[in-house]
Amino acid sequence: MSRVWNFSAGPAMLPESVLRQAAEDMLDWHGCGMGVMEMSHRGKDYMAIHAQATADLRELLDVPDNYKVLFLQGGGIGENAIIPMNLIGRGAVADFVITGSWSKKSEKEARKYGKTNIAFSTEACGYAGVPPMAEWRLSDDPSYVYACTNETVMGVEFPFVADLATVGRGQVPMVADMSSHILSRPVDVSKYGLIYAGAQKNIGPAGVTLVIIREDLLGHALPICPTAFDYKIVADHDSMYNTPPTYSIYIAGLVFQWLKAQGGLAEIERKNIAKAELLYGCIDASGLYESRVEKSCRSRMNVPFYLKDEALNEAFLEGAKAAGLVQLKGHKTVGGMRASLYNAMPLAGVQALVDYMREFERTRG
Amino acid sequence: MSRVWNFSAGPAMLPESVLRQAAEDMLDWHGCGMGVMEMSHRGKDYMAIHAQATADLRELLDVPDNYKVLFLQGGGIGENAIIPMNLIGRGAVADFVITGSWSKKSEKEARKYGKTNIAFSTEACGYAGVPPMAEWRLSDDPSYVYACTNETVMGVEFPFVADLATVGRGQVPMVADMSSHILSRPVDVSKYGLIYAGAQKNIGPAGVTLVIIREDLLGHALPICPTAFDYKIVADHDSMYNTPPTYSIYIAGLVFQWLKAQGGLAEIERKNIAKAELLYGCIDASGLYESRVEKSCRSRMNVPFYLKDEALNEAFLEGAKAAGLVQLKGHKTVGGMRASLYNAMPLAGVQALVDYMREFERTRG
Repeated sequence: MSRVWNFSAGPAMLPESVLRQAAEDMLDWHGCGMGVMEMSHRGKDYMAIHAQATADLRELLDVPDNYKVLFLQGGGIGENAIIPMNLIGRGAVADFVITGSWSKKSEKEARKYGKTNIAFSTEACGYAGVPPMAEWRLSDDPSYVYACTNETVMGVEFPFVADLATVGRGQVPMVADMSSHILSRPVDVSKYGLIYAGAQKNIGPAGVTLVIIREDLLGHALPICPTAFDYKIVADHDSMYNTPPTYSIYIAGLVFQWLKAQGGLAEIERKNIAKAELLYGCIDASGLYESRVEKSCRSRMNVPFYLKDEALNEAFLEGAKAAGLVQLKGHKTVGGMRASLYNAMPLAGVQALVDYMREFERTRG
Repeated sequence: MSRVWNFSAGPAMLPESVLRQAAEDMLDWHGCGMGVMEMSHRGKDYMAIHAQATADLRELLDVPDNYKVLFLQGGGIGENAIIPMNLIGRGAVADFVITGSWSKKSEKEARKYGKTNIAFSTEACGYAGVPPMAEWRLSDDPSYVYACTNETVMGVEFPFVADLATVGRGQVPMVADMSSHILSRPVDVSKYGLIYAGAQKNIGPAGVTLVIIREDLLGHALPICPTAFDYKIVADHDSMYNTPPTYSIYIAGLVFQWLKAQGGLAEIERKNIAKAELLYGCIDASGLYESRVEKSCRSRMNVPFYLKDEALNEAFLEGAKAAGLVQLKGHKTVGGMRASLYNAMPLAGVQALVDYMREFERTRG
């Protein structure tokens, strides 16, 4: 078996030790005579797995006691509807800060459920940066303010934490889609009303969505909100009102334990900074490659880059694949290349990519 | 490792060969250098897995060409809302045939989205049977008629196929929740407008929902239907408008291949009949155990039974566990015992249960 360096934006690389543990447990978890996929979600074995995953996540993110941790289904696109169905009824309008194709899509979906206001959009300048809070044109009393704090396609990451406690009456909840950078760095959860993330980037397999919500935001669902997606009902039943995606939560739990063994989020952030600096350093020092994102807002997780001679794209990708470097093609809407450097990608993988990029430039650029 | 006989109602036992294959593929699927969980859903490897699973399911169920096969998220409780959001707008009212706690819950959820009519309910007689079609009080021109053709908690299975082609103008779609008996027997898909099933019983892991829908029923979603759950959008994108639960679909695909290797649905039905006859035969011949479902409607998949002396319940369950027979406790709302005999449960498991039941009755009954 020869593993590749997988730079996919998601579903994405997982730590090898997590996969080995999953393979080992497949037919018989901890001697109980069944695999995790086969366990009733009401049985004590699965309940223990679920509780441990929740506790480990709370510890990693230092989630305050007045927040609930929920596991849902439907991914980020599902949440684009589920969030307004749960929160937009709190006020007259929801505000959106648009910094990429994902947040643009979120705002459009929310219009189905209430009034929206675009507080700022960077679309006209090619989604190259993040507007400072002083430039956000917020409504007087919005239900919530939405942002996608790391745009996976554009590779734009918020360089600051939007602190809405300083705005107006200071009671507006910030809602953040952190799908592609959650758990990559410490985060002050108390600054947010709601944080959510599809699992398939830094958490685990596709098919489970993490929601962290402040308790006072529960109980405001619109009458048309499906029961399975009413946060209050999900919270009241510890994410087991319906059958949760048990195996995906188990894998997420193994990832959380791996993260703790790595030293937690402060340590993983240190590694992620080193990985990102290595790759952006290579791009900036090159005459062939370029980044199109403002330096202050470059994502540590998703690094889009372009070959100045686009005629070389195919040769670049073919050579990369031959060197065991895969999933480097940029999103179809923007072209070019993209390397996603999630937690499970080791520095050695980024070093292999950088070595290849330098060699390609030397011989073909 | 010693595997138990797992009679859970779901998530439930999976074929051992499926689990062995999954463990083997975990770090490296077919030599591609990555595991299935790590694959981009847009990459050729996962696309091949997805296409094969869809094709195998179509073959097993002999799905006509004018039906789409969709993989969604949210399970049966999600579908309780998603179906009316997609179909109730076709007419003035949706009809429900209520034969257990599940169909009761489905009707209640549908009221959020439109008018409902209870065409028949067996609640007053303890959900012991299935009313013949002649007794259904259908509306004049309903959007659809809903039934749960196998009630998991009560163990009530439809003994006939509701043929709505013979009703009124013959254009009313039948919508069937087949979660707990899909793939247990051949089914004439053409008699239905929509068939759906949560995977965690006879298909695979929790977290993926199968929907088989006739094409003319696409495109009727209410404006408030979330994009991720609009059947037309899901169908137009081959279940990849959002990231599908890739690993769960892969496991489902392995189960479909296992079913084909077993000889398909006619052969699995033969085995399922033998298993059910063995267990019901034991119950009927006993002075200690009883079934409370009309014989004509007894489920082959979910067999609830009661000890006439309920004081023996705990001893029965403890002895069963010691004999490697687990998850036999009945649903909390009805008590007693329940043995679920899904496809992956071999006759040997049912024989072990029957042997234990007879021995328990002889020594303790």
